[in-house]
Amino acid sequence: LDSTVRVIMRPDDANIVGNVHGGTILKMIEEARCIIGTRHCNTQTGDRCVAALARVERTDFLHPMFIGEVAHVSAEITYTSKHSVEVQVNVLSENIVTGAKKLTNKATLWYVPFSLQNVAKIVEVPPIEYSSPEQEEAGKKRYEAQKLERLETKERNGEIIMSVSLPEPYTVAFSQSSLIHLIGPSDCTLHGFVHGGVTMKLMDEVAGIVAARHCKTNIVTASVDAINFHRKIKKGCVITISGRMTFTSNKSMEIEVFVDADPLVEAEKGKYRAVTAFFTYISLDKDNKPHPVPPLKVSNAELVCSVI
Amino acid sequence: LDSTVRVIMRPDDANIVGNVHGGTILKMIEEARCIIGTRHCNTQTGDRCVAALARVERTDFLHPMFIGEVAHVSAEITYTSKHSVEVQVNVLSENIVTGAKKLTNKATLWYVPFSLQNVAKIVEVPPIEYSSPEQEEAGKKRYEAQKLERLETKERNGEIIMSVSLPEPYTVAFSQSSLIHLIGPSDCTLHGFVHGGVTMKLMDEVAGIVAARHCKTNIVTASVDAINFHRKIKKGCVITISGRMTFTSNKSMEIEVFVDADPLVEAEKGKYRAVTAFFTYISLDKDNKPHPVPPLKVSNAELVCSVI
Amino acid sequence: LDSTVRVIMRPDDANIVGNVHGGTILKMIEEARCIIGTRHCNTQTGDRCVAALARVERTDFLHPMFIGEVAHVSAEITYTSKHSVEVQVNVLSENIVTGAKKLTNKATLWYVPFSLQNVAKIVEVPPIEYSSPEQEEAGKKRYEAQKLERLETKERNGEIIMSVSLPEPYTVAFSQSSLIHLIGPSDCTLHGFVHGGVTMKLMDEVAGIVAARHCKTNIVTASVDAINFHRKIKKGCVITISGRMTFTSNKSMEIEVFVDADPLVEAEKGKYRAVTAFFTYISLDKDNKPHPVPPLKVSNAELVCSVI
Repeated sequence: LDSTVRVIMRPDDANIVGNVHGGTILKMIEEARCIIGTRHCNTQTGDRCVAALARVERTDFLHPMFIGEVAHVSAEITYTSKHSVEVQVNVLSENIVTGAKKLTNKATLWYVPFSLQNVAKIVEVPPIEYSSPEQEEAGKKRYEAQKLERLETKERNGEIIMSVSLPEPYTVAFSQSSLIHLIGPSDCTLHGFVHGGVTMKLMDEVAGIVAARHCKTNIVTASVDAINFHRKIKKGCVITISGRMTFTSNKSMEIEVFVDADPLVEAEKGKYRAVTAFFTYISLDKDNKPHPVPPLKVSNAELVCSVI
Repeated sequence: LDSTVRVIMRPDDANIVGNVHGGTILKMIEEARCIIGTRHCNTQTGDRCVAALARVERTDFLHPMFIGEVAHVSAEITYTSKHSVEVQVNVLSENIVTGAKKLTNKATLWYVPFSLQNVAKIVEVPPIEYSSPEQEEAGKKRYEAQKLERLETKERNGEIIMSVSLPEPYTVAFSQSSLIHLIGPSDCTLHGFVHGGVTMKLMDEVAGIVAARHCKTNIVTASVDAINFHRKIKKGCVITISGRMTFTSNKSMEIEVFVDADPLVEAEKGKYRAVTAFFTYISLDKDNKPHPVPPLKVSNAELVCSVI
Repeated sequence: LDSTVRVIMRPDDANIVGNVHGGTILKMIEEARCIIGTRHCNTQTGDRCVAALARVERTDFLHPMFIGEVAHVSAEITYTSKHSVEVQVNVLSENIVTGAKKLTNKATLWYVPFSLQNVAKIVEVPPIEYSSPEQEEAGKKRYEAQKLERLETKERNGEIIMSVSLPEPYTVAFSQSSLIHLIGPSDCTLHGFVHGGVTMKLMDEVAGIVAARHCKTNIVTASVDAINFHRKIKKGCVITISGRMTFTSNKSMEIEVFVDADPLVEAEKGKYRAVTAFFTYISLDKDNKPHPVPPLKVSNAELVCSVI
């Protein structure tokens, strides 16, 4: 069975000049890997399983890909250990009008299959056949090398996160959140300005995360105070949407959200505040009924700031 | 022609429990407003125009809306001044299986039409007819009130942004960026874990913004160093993807990206580092040719930090 | 309540030149059909039910639709048998700046309601009232005709397709294309089955690639012959959508498209053919005018194949 993922590149897959984002290509590589991997691990009798990504080896982007081209992403299993599988993926871009094809990427991915019955259980991998003992030997070396590197990175990063000092619960800093978003074609009108609806959706997303971080329950938008659109936002800007808790009552949370726009390429124009609003959220218990909200702890410094 | 926007709510429009996001509803409200508004302002002779959102009045979410329900979003123009238009929007949810219908929102939006020939030019609005002088008088009062409030908010927010101290150009702090994302149904496998491809796409997005902020040109992914997936990420987590410039050569930029997962509701599990990688980007000039990269300024404090 | 689906067309709904994809229009048609159909079948007491698409009659694309236009998709029930419902759908495009309106499509869809309590059980359809006995008689004839055709297509597609290999220009093998898609949560109804509209959109995408590969120009959907939905597709399947050129005239290309479903995890269930259709495309020159199509080269082997 073929497992080549094949997709036409759309405006949203690319930057303003038409180059497909590296991230879009990485996503397709993982999709092809997932199809071939899940198939292989379910060829044996026993537990049904899914294949979870463990590592992607270094990947080079050899040629740019453009909107309107077809991406062909093909995958092959090249090594199996008891619990790990190596998949090699090739990405080819095809200009369907001129017929030109180019190899844009070669990637190597490692994954581990987990049981569907018990997500904590790692499943044994059915072995593949190698064309020669040398091929198997080379695979084994790649396997040992990546295993070592994974362990090293894990330890290094385990340390780093321990040293991160977390703000005190229920303060403004504890739930404060922000999101950056690069304005793409689908976010805009034909004339290159962001739809107000796109901005409001992102503002609600940030406000919702602030609310959930504060009360650690399911939350729901209760109301939105006046939203003011001070200045228009153009295609290609990066916007930062920031939210912070400003007030809590027994039953609700008020969150201030503002949108700052940064014209990335025309940098001389400077960053500016484009939209501001206040959202009110309610906390819900498991039966979808309103639930008491922990009171907001406000420090003296923050009080001064909010008075200004 | 009617301007009711009508859509079936899908899993991606809602949270884990099935409640449609307030942001999704705000986006549909703005779409209905845009249709009726653009139509109205183009009924006269003269410049063709588009209608830009200026303000949304306070909006209450009266009832939750759920996946599978049909949203009916209808809009009506209720007041016009020389350059502004007021639109009232009602949102109704319909359960097409039981037939139950509920009013979920009432919103009031103000917009200003701009000429398509000259985006800086505000176009005159064709007046509407009122059913009574009282109706017009009430509209005028709402118009004056919102105008005043918009001015006040604009001034207050103009001040705030002036006081924000920006980091020095070309330092790590100058281009450092992060993004929060709430893991939704489409980001996940059937078994409720995030697709590796979704994470990698967001990592590339953050790395690209860091690169573009540093060099203020078009940029393109050149390569990705090994990506390690230390721990799985579950549906309902909030992930923070952070990127910072670690190295520049004449032609390229190296950006470290890490993904931290925060199990929002199961808060006792704590925040953990899930994925780490290094991305390399190249700066491009207007002809898509490689362009020199401004060198990274590293302060002593940051050097110490990166050694740790 | 009205069931008109109404949405503004965005960049991702269209090709590079701005023409909205036929597949996007088919998806909206199916959504309007789903709203009116589910409503109608739940007006009676008894089992709650959902309406599954069984067949779409031949559909012509009368005028192109463009980004920024508003699509109005309205549906009406025109015939009911004991277990089947016929819905007629009209699609209108509106340029909200110039006010121009055009009828772009007229479509006829057949669906069958299934019980929500027991997905294998087909529910009885509440009868509609006809304005005249002639109207009912005409509906009955259409019903018998489509039933016969559905049966024939189902049998024909039971056979396995042959694989072809030579890539000489203008042969079938030259433009033959396929696409693999893993069915995710957003592609499905609440009950875990793929929306007919999602399948049709992907079918149009593959047909478009086949057409563009053959004639190397911009292409546009002209019509879709009957689409038959033989079997439902479940969440978690991988579907392969394959297209091949079956006929060319001076001005148009006919492309056969079929959808095969592969239950990845429940592999013992085997792969099956789920949907089949024929799409007709037109080649366009740089001024968006029809352009001659290179004739299809058919080898003897392929002739035999298509006769079977």
